[in-house]
Amino acid sequence: MDFSSFVTSLGTSLVIFALLMLAFTWLQRKPGNAVIYYPGRILRGLDPLEGRKRTRNPLAWIKEAVGASEAAVVAAAGVDAAAYLVFLSSVLAILVFSGIILLPVLLPVAATDNGAQSTTGSNSSGTFKNLDKLAMGNVQEKSPRLWAFLLGVYWVSFVTYYVLWKAYKHVLNMRAGAKSSPEVKPEEFTVLVRDIPAAPPGQSMKDHVDSFFQALHPETFYRSMIVTDNKKANKIWEELEGYRKKLARTEVVYAESKTTSKPEGERPTNRIGFLGLVGEKVDTINHCNEKINELLPKLEAEQEITVREKQKAAALVFFNSKPAAISAAQTIHSQKIDTWTVMEAPEPRQVLWTNLPRKFYERQIRSFVVYGIVFLTVFFYMIPITFVSAFTTLKNLKKYLPFLKKIVAQPEIKTVLEAFLPQIALLVFMALLPTLLVFLSKEEGIPSESHAVRAASGKYFYFVVFNVFLGVTIGGALFDSLKTIINHPKQVITLLGSSLPKSATFFLTFVALKFFVGYGLELSRLVPLIIFHLKKRFLCKTEAEVKEAWAPGDFGYATRVPNDMLIITIVLCYSVIAPIIIPFGVVYFGLGWLVARNQALKVYVPNYESNGRMWPHLHARIIASLILYQITMFGYIGILRKFYYAPFLIPVIVSSFVFAYVCKKHFYLAFLNTPLEVACRGTKEIPNMESIYTAYIPPCLGTERLEDDDQFEDARSFSLKTAP
Amino acid sequence: MDFSSFVTSLGTSLVIFALLMLAFTWLQRKPGNAVIYYPGRILRGLDPLEGRKRTRNPLAWIKEAVGASEAAVVAAAGVDAAAYLVFLSSVLAILVFSGIILLPVLLPVAATDNGAQSTTGSNSSGTFKNLDKLAMGNVQEKSPRLWAFLLGVYWVSFVTYYVLWKAYKHVLNMRAGAKSSPEVKPEEFTVLVRDIPAAPPGQSMKDHVDSFFQALHPETFYRSMIVTDNKKANKIWEELEGYRKKLARTEVVYAESKTTSKPEGERPTNRIGFLGLVGEKVDTINHCNEKINELLPKLEAEQEITVREKQKAAALVFFNSKPAAISAAQTIHSQKIDTWTVMEAPEPRQVLWTNLPRKFYERQIRSFVVYGIVFLTVFFYMIPITFVSAFTTLKNLKKYLPFLKKIVAQPEIKTVLEAFLPQIALLVFMALLPTLLVFLSKEEGIPSESHAVRAASGKYFYFVVFNVFLGVTIGGALFDSLKTIINHPKQVITLLGSSLPKSATFFLTFVALKFFVGYGLELSRLVPLIIFHLKKRFLCKTEAEVKEAWAPGDFGYATRVPNDMLIITIVLCYSVIAPIIIPFGVVYFGLGWLVARNQALKVYVPNYESNGRMWPHLHARIIASLILYQITMFGYIGILRKFYYAPFLIPVIVSSFVFAYVCKKHFYLAFLNTPLEVACRGTKEIPNMESIYTAYIPPCLGTERLEDDDQFEDARSFSLKTAP
Repeated sequence: MDFSSFVTSLGTSLVIFALLMLAFTWLQRKPGNAVIYYPGRILRGLDPLEGRKRTRNPLAWIKEAVGASEAAVVAAAGVDAAAYLVFLSSVLAILVFSGIILLPVLLPVAATDNGAQSTTGSNSSGTFKNLDKLAMGNVQEKSPRLWAFLLGVYWVSFVTYYVLWKAYKHVLNMRAGAKSSPEVKPEEFTVLVRDIPAAPPGQSMKDHVDSFFQALHPETFYRSMIVTDNKKANKIWEELEGYRKKLARTEVVYAESKTTSKPEGERPTNRIGFLGLVGEKVDTINHCNEKINELLPKLEAEQEITVREKQKAAALVFFNSKPAAISAAQTIHSQKIDTWTVMEAPEPRQVLWTNLPRKFYERQIRSFVVYGIVFLTVFFYMIPITFVSAFTTLKNLKKYLPFLKKIVAQPEIKTVLEAFLPQIALLVFMALLPTLLVFLSKEEGIPSESHAVRAASGKYFYFVVFNVFLGVTIGGALFDSLKTIINHPKQVITLLGSSLPKSATFFLTFVALKFFVGYGLELSRLVPLIIFHLKKRFLCKTEAEVKEAWAPGDFGYATRVPNDMLIITIVLCYSVIAPIIIPFGVVYFGLGWLVARNQALKVYVPNYESNGRMWPHLHARIIASLILYQITMFGYIGILRKFYYAPFLIPVIVSSFVFAYVCKKHFYLAFLNTPLEVACRGTKEIPNMESIYTAYIPPCLGTERLEDDDQFEDARSFSLKTAP
Repeated sequence: MDFSSFVTSLGTSLVIFALLMLAFTWLQRKPGNAVIYYPGRILRGLDPLEGRKRTRNPLAWIKEAVGASEAAVVAAAGVDAAAYLVFLSSVLAILVFSGIILLPVLLPVAATDNGAQSTTGSNSSGTFKNLDKLAMGNVQEKSPRLWAFLLGVYWVSFVTYYVLWKAYKHVLNMRAGAKSSPEVKPEEFTVLVRDIPAAPPGQSMKDHVDSFFQALHPETFYRSMIVTDNKKANKIWEELEGYRKKLARTEVVYAESKTTSKPEGERPTNRIGFLGLVGEKVDTINHCNEKINELLPKLEAEQEITVREKQKAAALVFFNSKPAAISAAQTIHSQKIDTWTVMEAPEPRQVLWTNLPRKFYERQIRSFVVYGIVFLTVFFYMIPITFVSAFTTLKNLKKYLPFLKKIVAQPEIKTVLEAFLPQIALLVFMALLPTLLVFLSKEEGIPSESHAVRAASGKYFYFVVFNVFLGVTIGGALFDSLKTIINHPKQVITLLGSSLPKSATFFLTFVALKFFVGYGLELSRLVPLIIFHLKKRFLCKTEAEVKEAWAPGDFGYATRVPNDMLIITIVLCYSVIAPIIIPFGVVYFGLGWLVARNQALKVYVPNYESNGRMWPHLHARIIASLILYQITMFGYIGILRKFYYAPFLIPVIVSSFVFAYVCKKHFYLAFLNTPLEVACRGTKEIPNMESIYTAYIPPCLGTERLEDDDQFEDARSFSLKTAP
């Protein structure tokens, strides 16, 4: 990539960003768009206009985002969003602190030397040399100037340790604050019990669980709820809900038809065959009512059967105090430790019910199989990515696809293609994965949504590092050196070091594209806006349907986090080789922090709250990036620049591992389990236990049931008897 | 080693064994020796003669040992001894089951082939060929007969899995039984708290701990005991005890002098200078009384200072119920997880007080340093062992030490030397280590004696495997192949495989020596007997001194277990190469089981009771031996016997790892922490909490104190106030 295409790419991105910002400023003033730009506020019952009044100033949102306190963020979008913002600001801090030293020191050191001729990329045009002159490639081999770069690695590492340590402490306190709030949360009184052994003959699972916990926690046990196989009940319930929605919608249509010419209106009809295209024509309102009346008793019957006969080997156990539940969740209950396994219960809304009854060893095996699949996918995805990066240069394109020669020869198309083609290909690849990974993670037998998202994000991180970073970096040199890798696997570090500088401008453009176009789209919410208006005009009839059309969703950490991680990895790895990348990283995370704060305050509504449980995951991956960076630098400085003192980098690699270990010992267990101290800080009164219990009743079992039906008391798990 | 020296060695061992058995039969009948042969019984207040009446039959002890129930063993020597016996019987079962198939199948398969010429050792004499014919070395390379040996490895492995699984379950139940016994054990109501942060200014450590636990366990907290720095108090107390002993002894001497010629007797005197050899001559009784009267107030003053001012950052916290203590020991208390760390308290008698206040990271670093030292020692010990095995053959001896030629030339000396020299050298080496290792393990900051013994035993196991087994095996070929190892470290497996058969007879003799002489000495207790009689005649004056002279001690697991492990490793590794070793192994563990049972029932008195906590340690090391065996066999069959199907052994290696993992998941946590179910099984009444508390007062602080001294109540940790 030459200098002109780099500038073109940057310029185009900037123009797109400016256009998107204009669109955002203009669109958010329209009252009809409030549900798109302030859905979070509306759902929390706040006035969306409150923000709008000040929008004469198009940058008012920045002031708001910066000005809001962390408590406001927690109140608006939960601890998870706040933890994510801490993550963004921590990385920002790492890059700012690194840049303060690296930019003024390393750039002059590199620029005043003259070793570039020997190593820079092949087709750099004259002016682009200026950028290359600012990179480490310009320093002569074995030069004592390399000490500056070596010490730069130390500086970046220690800045990272410092910032991460502070941030971990901060998030831990935030989590403890949320956990010790006086607000009653059902999950804090509940323990999830899995791997329950078969009940003794003649005893129901419910009695089995009750007698076990009654004996072990005579004073604090409240009651239990057995997990049931709700598949069939759920199906009936969904069908019922479908007819209800249809009924509501049809009634609106009918009412609308009344107001016009005919006062009696026109009763809507539909066909009951395949997709409503064939079959008998019926009056929709009557048909829905019939169906509802038909399904209701069916559901009730199924509910009773489910509760009585479809009890599974998992349960939720409720305690009448927070410390008792916390303590029980951390204590081994049975001598057979793979039975009666206990853990803190997830929130009701994020429980993955079908995973709960999965057995101990089944979970292990599933997890093993899933990781096998992920491993294979990581390696097979490498092939297309390698092709993309091999085609990066148009020279290659012309060589391998000669029929494209004519099109590509036109200078405009050529420039645009060169600038965007590889990056877009990458983005598309990366967009296909998250759905698959969340699905795979849920198949592992994980009990909660937030855990599944974390697990998926972890898997995505492998992809990102292996395929994008290593793939593009090494892939650029791959056609020449595939044989070398296979024959001498140890040379990967050398290869990595030698390939990095060549890919520097590729990643500069990639990062710029990401933040200008990505954050522009994110902030302007053009896609949701268009979809909402289309839906509203053509599809939505009832209020509920409109509300569904603008429902904002949550941050989508499973995709968002690994993408940020990719940028961190890239920026860290180039921070010393080409320090000019640091300002790009700073803009990415600075802008990212601003936009995410705005979205947290006004737009997104969390689907679940895990109280920042994601943090150790983020922490570990930043350290992994750091270590990858250190190893790469060791290879680059030692092997490529032939610097004798490169082994001085080994202590810093070791210290990263020590830092990771110390952090784990110092903080991790407090994320995994709630410390007793924290649980005791909340209120001491016994809350309304009944409401805690009902919070966990799945909708398909709860809403339609006769609540005072006592006849199946002994066999039923969801019977709502009073506390013992 | 040739056949005649093998037979000589075996014969000599057998003769020694017979002599020792005769000595045992004869000596144990003498009433004066009862304290040597039945000290356990005497200490438990049983009649030692009860066993003696039947000793007309010299094998009566075998009947008794076999006949006793496991409950009797537990009652006599505790769960630890019972678990050790399960270990011996499990290994016995593994070897018996293996032998049943391997001996009748593999011996004929080997004997009827004829490939030995190419590989057997150099100086085997004619007749010794018969033994070699029964080994795998006799099978031709690439022969399909090797399938039998390959399947033999599978058979041994699956037998091991089966037996170990059963045994783990058995020991777990035994442990649970002991933990849920209605007997009140102080440690079951106690939690050890370490890493206590500094008390807030103006608050004593005691108040700090009390208020913390009172807040978190308002209903179950009883009181706390702060660990103090007792070094000085202990010194004074020991001095005091010394004078008391001396006084008692001198009084006996004085009384004895009375009864003879002079009725007023002769008051003993001594000099108070260096070693009682110089200085002023004083009347011993008066001198001791003076000293005692002088030390008593000094001790009391020091006790008060210790309790008030030498409080350290560790404490024992007492709860008024077992489940509460168990649950608290498994719950994270503080948000800073490296403060207020909790664990189940060790028994009072095995607490290592000085280790308790060591800080979290100090322990980590100490552990790291200790393992570094052990690593270095393992590798530097290898040098002498290598020399020993190089000198194994007299040929080498004569070559390197020509002046020995004359002595060695005499046939009797030559045979004896050849038979025993290397084995004895080994035994001496191995005897030097345990003290060092127990010391090192204690330096790690481990809180209890039993844990330190386990840790030392683990380190000893590394020695045994690396130095004895690998050292002797590879060392035999070392002078030729040292260069090969250094240049091609991967060839160690090849080397191991190729060296094993040559060392087979060495190990046969080693095992035989171990069981005949070792167990003979163990059973006849000749050494303690001689020491006791010498002490009794020349040193002991008071009853207490006599009792001390015959105090039996405990099993000494730190040395015993790794030695057994060495035998297991040897026998397993040769089980298929030379199945003839299996009967030797069977005799070793059979005899070992018998002798250990006898000693457990009659002799040894446990120093501590860890309720079989040692088992996971034993289990893991048997599996480690098994895996070493499997890898060696892979090298031997695949590389040395050039069998194409050797990779069929890879699944069995993998399955060993899976088995180890499953066992850990299935059982281990229940050993680490007491399951709540088990803790709840005992009695429900609140025991005498005062006695539980006083059990933990160290002797130097407890015995002399004024128990109703209330004036330092708020500052003192050991004040004996009543329950709140």
